[in-house]
Amino acid sequence: MDLFSFFNSSTSYRVRIALALKGVGFDYHGINIRTGEHREAAFVAEHNPSASVPAIEEGGFRLGQSLAIIDWLDARFPEPRLIPPESDHRARVLELSYAIACDIHPVNNLRVLNYLTKNMQVPAAGKAEWYGHWIAEGMAAVERLLLRAGSEFPGAWSVGDEPTMADCCLIPQLANARRMGCDLSAYTRATAIYEAAIEHPAFIAAAPENQPDFAP
Amino acid sequence: MDLFSFFNSSTSYRVRIALALKGVGFDYHGINIRTGEHREAAFVAEHNPSASVPAIEEGGFRLGQSLAIIDWLDARFPEPRLIPPESDHRARVLELSYAIACDIHPVNNLRVLNYLTKNMQVPAAGKAEWYGHWIAEGMAAVERLLLRAGSEFPGAWSVGDEPTMADCCLIPQLANARRMGCDLSAYTRATAIYEAAIEHPAFIAAAPENQPDFAP
Repeated sequence: MDLFSFFNSSTSYRVRIALALKGVGFDYHGINIRTGEHREAAFVAEHNPSASVPAIEEGGFRLGQSLAIIDWLDARFPEPRLIPPESDHRARVLELSYAIACDIHPVNNLRVLNYLTKNMQVPAAGKAEWYGHWIAEGMAAVERLLLRAGSEFPGAWSVGDEPTMADCCLIPQLANARRMGCDLSAYTRATAIYEAAIEHPAFIAAAPENQPDFAP
Repeated sequence: MDLFSFFNSSTSYRVRIALALKGVGFDYHGINIRTGEHREAAFVAEHNPSASVPAIEEGGFRLGQSLAIIDWLDARFPEPRLIPPESDHRARVLELSYAIACDIHPVNNLRVLNYLTKNMQVPAAGKAEWYGHWIAEGMAAVERLLLRAGSEFPGAWSVGDEPTMADCCLIPQLANARRMGCDLSAYTRATAIYEAAIEHPAFIAAAPENQPDFAP
């Protein structure tokens, strides 16, 4: 399997966690989204029509979108399951994953921050305010969802006692917010899950600083 | 089943399409996101910790996030399946759904447009430019994905000859972009699917103008 990833892309980080949890080997291809490699015509034509990372390839099959990749991996390499099959357990994992992947990450990703700077001339302070606003609003919702999910499916992870796709989304999002200097102390459940997760071998293997294309 | 929805919310529209395709009856509860009803403490505590619409309730089970709801409905009311079970077909449906739900919609939704106006004093022209920029970038990617999906799974719909979750995402997104005056003529595959879909009874039933809380 081939993985197209950028070390600092949190959507790539989600897929790297999933691959590491499942113990699936792959060839790593670093795509520098800071210099726009993901938008180059050859990458779009040959690897990902979405013009983004992550993307995977296996036996001629090509797929983008981190959560679609994790779903596909879950069918192809079922152990451990990251999206539980049981209806209510599954619903909580998906609900949390989407609360991060649809409500928080897209508004704060690199292309949006670049648009604020380059197209709108928003100064650094305005950009930090923007970033912090969506983290505060989004993480307050995620913390409430985590508390409900934890009461229904107790355990050290987001939804129960095994890591799921929700954790593949939560940990990269919190790592990002920490790097941006956000105060996360109000989200006690989320940060407790984070602190435990980053000690887990799969999460260590998937971390930005442990990727071949890492640059400080 | 109870559905909490706002007529003009495109994420609510997605779930309304899914319910209509499956022929599932429900009680409609209009939640006015323009006046902030989705953020009121009672709504958040009693209906949706995400402080957003759509949300559903059935027999004490409460769930938010449109794509999590559609996945849950697919298990509870399997006919017609909106997320195909087969691995590659499924991957294309999810990939397209996420390209809209993660890459386009979140950046252009009401809360973001409100932030531009209220917190950043961006004038109407700047807001229209913002909206148009993300539609152009996002829809170019979606059009490429539709062409690939259509070559693998031919048919009148996004992925094959039956409507799927990808169509539940695509039609509301295009309806939104049209309402905002975006030029969609370059996306010939997407607009062909749209024009056919809006004649389908389920898509008519789910349309904003046919909801009990519709206001011109």
